[in-house]
Parts: sequence; C-alpha cells; structure tokens
Amino acid sequence: MIEKYLITGFSGFVSKHFCDYLERKQVDAFVKGIDVQDHHFNFNDYKYVSFDFEKVDLLSVKEIERVLYDFKPKFILHLASYSSVALSWKIPIASFNNNTNIFLNILEAIRKLNLDTRILSVGSSEEYGNIDGTYLPLREDTPLNPTSPYAVARVSQELLSKVYVKGYGLDIVLTRSFNHIGPMQKDIFVVSSFAKQLIYIKKSNNQQGTLIAGDTSIIRDFCDVRDVVRAYHLLLHNGIRGEVYNVCSGVGTSLRDIIAHMADIISVKVHVKVDESLRRPDENMIIIGCNEKISRAVDWTPQYTLMQSLHEVLDYWDKI
Amino acid sequence: MIEKYLITGFSGFVSKHFCDYLERKQVDAFVKGIDVQDHHFNFNDYKYVSFDFEKVDLLSVKEIERVLYDFKPKFILHLASYSSVALSWKIPIASFNNNTNIFLNILEAIRKLNLDTRILSVGSSEEYGNIDGTYLPLREDTPLNPTSPYAVARVSQELLSKVYVKGYGLDIVLTRSFNHIGPMQKDIFVVSSFAKQLIYIKKSNNQQGTLIAGDTSIIRDFCDVRDVVRAYHLLLHNGIRGEVYNVCSGVGTSLRDIIAHMADIISVKVHVKVDESLRRPDENMIIIGCNEKISRAVDWTPQYTLMQSLHEVLDYWDKI
Repeated sequence: MIEKYLITGFSGFVSKHFCDYLERKQVDAFVKGIDVQDHHFNFNDYKYVSFDFEKVDLLSVKEIERVLYDFKPKFILHLASYSSVALSWKIPIASFNNNTNIFLNILEAIRKLNLDTRILSVGSSEEYGNIDGTYLPLREDTPLNPTSPYAVARVSQELLSKVYVKGYGLDIVLTRSFNHIGPMQKDIFVVSSFAKQLIYIKKSNNQQGTLIAGDTSIIRDFCDVRDVVRAYHLLLHNGIRGEVYNVCSGVGTSLRDIIAHMADIISVKVHVKVDESLRRPDENMIIIGCNEKISRAVDWTPQYTLMQSLHEVLDYWDKI
Repeated sequence: MIEKYLITGFSGFVSKHFCDYLERKQVDAFVKGIDVQDHHFNFNDYKYVSFDFEKVDLLSVKEIERVLYDFKPKFILHLASYSSVALSWKIPIASFNNNTNIFLNILEAIRKLNLDTRILSVGSSEEYGNIDGTYLPLREDTPLNPTSPYAVARVSQELLSKVYVKGYGLDIVLTRSFNHIGPMQKDIFVVSSFAKQLIYIKKSNNQQGTLIAGDTSIIRDFCDVRDVVRAYHLLLHNGIRGEVYNVCSGVGTSLRDIIAHMADIISVKVHVKVDESLRRPDENMIIIGCNEKISRAVDWTPQYTLMQSLHEVLDYWDKI
C-alpha cells in the first residue's frame, strides 16, 4: 500500500533527506510537500516515491484545513519552523507564530476533520535550556528550562501536543531533536556557516584566513541529518503515541573542535575571530543528549560518524 | 506622585475590584483601561483615581505599541485573557491567541519602546495541571503539567516572561492565581453560575429546585477577588522581578460544599443534576495552593473568609 506523507517545511534540507531515505528504502510513498517558499529539489530520478508540492502558509487555518481535507495524509512530518535561536531573539513574535501557532493550526485542523493521521511533532534540544551540569546527558524526563523565544515556542508546541493527545485523542509522537548537520543545510546554521567560510578560505590563494564565529566554547550534540530522518521514519511507524524522544548522538563536541576538525580535513590554517554580535543572550553552554529511549523504542542509533558528516558538509560547500 | 497603571482586560470584574482597591487605599492613580469590549463600570464617585478607557485589540501589535508609546505606564496589570478552561477546549486557537500571543505582543512592544514598565503577568493554578496528590499543596516549584489548552497558554506566557526578564531585561512579576470569586463575576465561572441558579430557585415560589453542574466532586482553592487585587497591588510594588507567586487561600473546597454552603445561606433546597456536557476532558480533580511564598515576600494573606465571599456573591445575584 502506498504511504501518504504530508511534509510541512518541505523546502528545508531535512525534508529532502527524508524523501531520499524513503526512496533508498524503496518505500512506495506519495509525498505532498507544503511550504511558504518554493523548493529547489529535483525528484526526477525517484522510482518509489512520487510527489506533489504546494505553497501553503500554515498561519492560515483555512489553507491548512483545505490541504488536509483534500490530501488526508496517513503521516504528517511537521518540519515547518523558524528554527533559528538567533532569529528568535531578533523577531520573537514571528518566531513564536511560525513555530507554536502554525503547529496548533495543524492540530486543530486534524481534530476538526477527525482524520486518522499520525503526526511527528519535531521539537528541539533547546527546550532543555540552561541546565545544571549534573543533568547531563539530557534525558527526556530532565526538567525543561527554555531560555530563548525559540525554545519557549518548542516547549509550547510539546505541551499542546500532550493536551491534544490526552484531551482530544490525536495521534502524535514527539521528538526533541538535537543539532543536525549534513549536506544542503543552509549557512544560517553554525556548522554550515563554518564549512562555507572554510571552503572560501581554502579557495583563496594562501590557504589561510579568518573565520567569524560566536562563542566557540559551547558544546553541542551533533547528529547527521540522514540519521535524523531515519529516526523520524521509525518514530512515525513505531513510536509510542504521546511519547517524546531525544534524537541525538549522545556525544558532545565544542564548536572549537568542529572548526579544528574541518580545517584539518581540508588542510587550511584558520584564525577564529569572535563576533560579539553573534553571541546570544542567556546561551546554553552545553547540550548533550541521551538516546537510550529512542534506541530501546525503535532500535535506532546513529550510523554516521561526526567526521563522515563533516567531510560531506565540506564537500557540499566545495561543489556548490 | 501619580501612579500610572495600564490595565488590560479592563472590562472584567477583577479590574473593577483593583480600581476600587486603589480608591479605598487613597492611591493617587491614573488608570488607563483597555479591552476589546466596552466596560460597564461607573467611576463617578472616585476621588483619588482617574480614568481613561479605550477599546484596543491586543492581537494588533500596532495598536498596543501606539497605546504604550502614548501612555508610558509605570505598571501594567495584565488581566486580558480568555480565562475559561471550558472555552479553551471548544476554541483552542482563539484561547491560545488571546492568552499567549496577546501577552507576547505586549512584552515585545515594551521591549521595542524600551519602557521602564513593571508588568504583572497573571497566570493560573491550572498551570499545575493533573498532579499527584503528594504534591499538595501546590508550591511554586511543583512541576507544571498543564492539561488543557488554556493551561498550556498560561505556561507559555510564563515561559515567555522568564525569557523576556533574563534575555531582554524586562521587569515582570508573575502570579499563578487560583480560582477567584466575588461580586460582579460573570456566570460562565462556576461559583457565579451556582449563585445565579440558586437565587433563581430562591425567587421561584417553592424555594426548591434543580441546579445544573459539571463534576461537583472537584476541589478548588477559592480566593476572594478583593484579596486577589490586593495581592496584585502588593506584587506590582514589592514583588521580586522574574519571580512567580501563587495567589491562593491555601484551603481546598469541593464544588459540592460550595453549593451546600450557598443553599444554606439563602435557605433553599437544591437537587444537583450533573450535565455531562459540562465535564471536561482530563479534568484536574484537586487544586490547592500554598501561599507561603507571597506571604513572606509581600506580607499577604487572605482577609475574606469563604463564607463572606459566598454571602456577597449571592447578594450580588440577588440584586441584579
């Protein structure tokens, strides 16, 4: 039987990797992508997955109701998000609306239309916020302490999910996804930004130069986007309704080390210059997750190593 | 010096009681009230407090920015809310927008205009949600487990407040206000609804009749609205920035007992009929707060007894 997926935020790189995953797995699938922006992906070579795309603004309840009524998806992979923490400090209202409110609109449409749809609510490690080091690695039952507008929006999304599961009987599985990296990620995200700058340095004559960064001492848990989408597929099929799962590697790496690794890979010498404007208010210094729960639930552990991911991110920026 | 207050949700009964409190305390105050609806209060007898009122929709960022720019309040008492849990189950989007989003709009306007304004963010005991009995009475550090769209909206408001305090330096004091009762409260709230029905029964010939209710076994912590507004005034002046305070009596009373007390007061015999449609999904069975924190911080404890409040609520409905 053909699996019907609605993917919101279709024009982002996670969506493309998810479709690639379906195709590699030879899943007979029909994917309807929606986004406020056009996408630039090419699906011509796909054999198993077919596509439809429509420009839809999820802030419009009417629009999303129409799409859901027409398409009646079996699964919704909800990727649409203003997922930048930095941006959320600059435009908190737009960030909140385009995370929490759009999600609520989707839930409400599903409820009203009484559809038998399973939704993957993609959340963020940022929800944990600034936590005492004794809580590391972060487990799903670690208290949430969101410290940015973006993080609050994600916690709100999660709380709404729980109300819709318990109060209205909707079928939602939740993630707290940690930083993901991989080819095609935009350079507003930190590792892509570094890779792009490093490739630029490499291509300049002297193979050395200056890289602009925020606080490079912060530690994050990076997961390859291809592992992430595999987790999403597994959770959509086998996750437990109403449960939230960390999607993470379980390993912390400082931004400083990421830069050093990537500079090594392409053999450039780099001087890091800290741009104070890139520092954020109330930054979380260290985020490392525990992936035991998802591992037990759907037998998922990351398959890509950090070095593999970094190689491919650099490759991507080299060829672009 | 004249104290400048902006009161949102001005047309509700809490606002009137707050103004009465300022007047009784002989506070030289200028109050600007805003609401989407007209108010029906008469302030002609006031000597110390003067007023201005404007119809404003807080969903409009532009509107609220204009009002704040023009008025530059020293204090904002933020009462505007879709505060009905029942309604939030029926129209969750409107409930969320008219709690969380309007509040975010205010915070963002204050931030942009860089005003030196102290805001009282009024939250709700509903934020605690369905909790294990061992947590009773609820303290401010009890984990939040919101179980209705309304409760989620209030938790989101609180989380946003904390981000605006820590990340942007805004001056916000927070409450989790438990059920309040008193004259002038609308009959969409439970005690007013009971009082109105009982007065109707009393005025019918036979002094007995049927009262329609939801689940009357639920236990709530009721506070007189006049105690509540005194707490708000104290917190606006002496609460600690970024801190959240329970505003509650510390005593739990079942709805069944509320009905019995009121029936006694006016000597009617009442038969309670449960209307299943008034039951809510995932209802919190028991909510009792601890008021130690506010008591220590601003020397507040309730002055009205439950029986006093019930007498006056009945009086109000008798005379209306």
